[in-house]
Amino acid sequence: MGRWVIIAPERRIRPEQVSLPAMVRQPGPCVFCGGQEELDPHEIYAIRSNGSPRNTPGWQVRVLPNKFPVLRIEDKLTREGVGMFDMMAGVGAHEVIVETPDHDLELADLPEPHIANILRAYRDRMHDLGGDERFKYVLIFKNQGYLAGATMPHAHSQLIATPVTPKRVKEELSGAQRYYEFKRRCVFCDIIKQETRLTRERLVFENDTFVVLSPFAARVPYEMWIVPKQHNCDYVHISEAEYAGLAEALKTTLLKMRAVLMDPPFNYLIHTAPFRRPRAGYWATIQHDYHWHVEILPRLTRAAGFEEGSGFYINPTQPEEAAEVLARAPLAPEARPEAAAAPAVLAADPLPARAA
Amino acid sequence: MGRWVIIAPERRIRPEQVSLPAMVRQPGPCVFCGGQEELDPHEIYAIRSNGSPRNTPGWQVRVLPNKFPVLRIEDKLTREGVGMFDMMAGVGAHEVIVETPDHDLELADLPEPHIANILRAYRDRMHDLGGDERFKYVLIFKNQGYLAGATMPHAHSQLIATPVTPKRVKEELSGAQRYYEFKRRCVFCDIIKQETRLTRERLVFENDTFVVLSPFAARVPYEMWIVPKQHNCDYVHISEAEYAGLAEALKTTLLKMRAVLMDPPFNYLIHTAPFRRPRAGYWATIQHDYHWHVEILPRLTRAAGFEEGSGFYINPTQPEEAAEVLARAPLAPEARPEAAAAPAVLAADPLPARAA
Repeated sequence: MGRWVIIAPERRIRPEQVSLPAMVRQPGPCVFCGGQEELDPHEIYAIRSNGSPRNTPGWQVRVLPNKFPVLRIEDKLTREGVGMFDMMAGVGAHEVIVETPDHDLELADLPEPHIANILRAYRDRMHDLGGDERFKYVLIFKNQGYLAGATMPHAHSQLIATPVTPKRVKEELSGAQRYYEFKRRCVFCDIIKQETRLTRERLVFENDTFVVLSPFAARVPYEMWIVPKQHNCDYVHISEAEYAGLAEALKTTLLKMRAVLMDPPFNYLIHTAPFRRPRAGYWATIQHDYHWHVEILPRLTRAAGFEEGSGFYINPTQPEEAAEVLARAPLAPEARPEAAAAPAVLAADPLPARAA
Repeated sequence: MGRWVIIAPERRIRPEQVSLPAMVRQPGPCVFCGGQEELDPHEIYAIRSNGSPRNTPGWQVRVLPNKFPVLRIEDKLTREGVGMFDMMAGVGAHEVIVETPDHDLELADLPEPHIANILRAYRDRMHDLGGDERFKYVLIFKNQGYLAGATMPHAHSQLIATPVTPKRVKEELSGAQRYYEFKRRCVFCDIIKQETRLTRERLVFENDTFVVLSPFAARVPYEMWIVPKQHNCDYVHISEAEYAGLAEALKTTLLKMRAVLMDPPFNYLIHTAPFRRPRAGYWATIQHDYHWHVEILPRLTRAAGFEEGSGFYINPTQPEEAAEVLARAPLAPEARPEAAAAPAVLAADPLPARAA
């Protein structure tokens, strides 16, 4: 009820295609490789250090349209009834951010200034798409590994611009807003303070500009959030110092994950404020009550019927144990000691409406 | 924000255990097999036709406590603050409904009267647990196949009783309530009417008591709902005729899925009203506005970063195509013709609040 679903028949599964092929680590070159630009000459954006022309080698980060988009930029934004139901044309944008011209490197292998440029590409594409009035949101995400949804082995992230604010983002916005109404403080700023000053048991890493923590109500084992120390609702307003700080935090976190979790499949995504069009009410406090951040979700468990049916997550790993293991993790694979078991608990993110 | 997570450290993933073992189809007998009752003599409930005693052979359906429960019935219900966060003892019940003493049969292979007895066991356990004031909800679900979360190959379902109403159920309740406030009719009754009388393009199967349909905003390819024709918010009040009708609808649907989707992993779950304790307001209309049903989710796609981060589902299969394929499906494997592609759409379940 009230759920929006994207029906994307160009990607559809025919009955005869239902068995999932394994993603083999295909050797390069592929369509994302440096030197193969003529295979996909629809370059939307690139970061080039040598001033080379569009659709030629010499780039460090390159953005292309997704060949099998779940939403398309061409369509007009229409909304209509179908009997008792609602339908909207699948207008949107779906782009691929190719992270490196090198087929054999993963994001975590890249130097920090290179990672900072990937983060810059995220910001620039988000800012550019914000100019299109049809879009309410841009979600930047990365799927690494077949079980995390990746189909191309060459290192890349994706973005999808949508004509409605995604449900999960709305829930987070409204939770943060209720906290702000109650406390007159940003819930994320309060979390940073609690996790770095009052207790450090869920802290994985910090530098001058970012905190990496295992959230109190982690949904999956070894979930981590990377949160900027400086309050800011909008990733588009990330600062130069923050590019460097986030690059370090992200690389460190991914290397730690690789070391202790044996190079797991994972997703990460950026949660930021929706585009703030001039409108009444809804966005009035968003500058103060929301706080952009990166969520990293290793894919170590299979979602099952209970989670799907209830919206409850069952997380078999305590966030404090995950944080301890990750905080002490080296940046190369090594066996880790095990921690002691503790009783099961239900843990919730703060929400005054639930404390009543 | 506002999300509850179950931290279940007894099931935790240690860093050295992160690679998922494949579930091999182990030959019986196992602990769920007929004749092995002494291996788990904690029988909570059983349906026996021959009057045999507890924890002995002769049963058709048998309910046991889950050996690795995500929640435990022993704990006291407490709720406390941990710094700024909320924590609740993981009180609850987690049971296994063993569907047959035969190690080599799946639910779809059982005769309909046997399946009706499984449905009876669901109802009886739900009713019994409703007597425990600590519980707000019982979720009945089945994971079949490794990728759907099953760890034991012997046919079984599960139930989890929880001290809070699950988030997804709350969302569905509140969507149905808003529809009722607007229309003064049950949204599910309206869906049945639309899908059987106005158009039959999303109809998979129907009998006297049940409709099987592909929901308009299907989340995953070949999602199906089994909805009772008779309005009723509560699975506990299922009638004798409905046991037989649901057994037929469920068996038919699962056999069709097996035929056209090549025996896919799947989850199904029962969505029903929370236990209606004498309380003000909240439950006043639930009898009229909510309608229990079964949701079946084949696991043909991998959840990826975008879905996790947005709460949007990307479904590559049109529900109308899925319904057509399934409606015409035989009850044994056979190749299916393919349907034509259509443009991507965003489809939403009805919700007056969104139509504004």
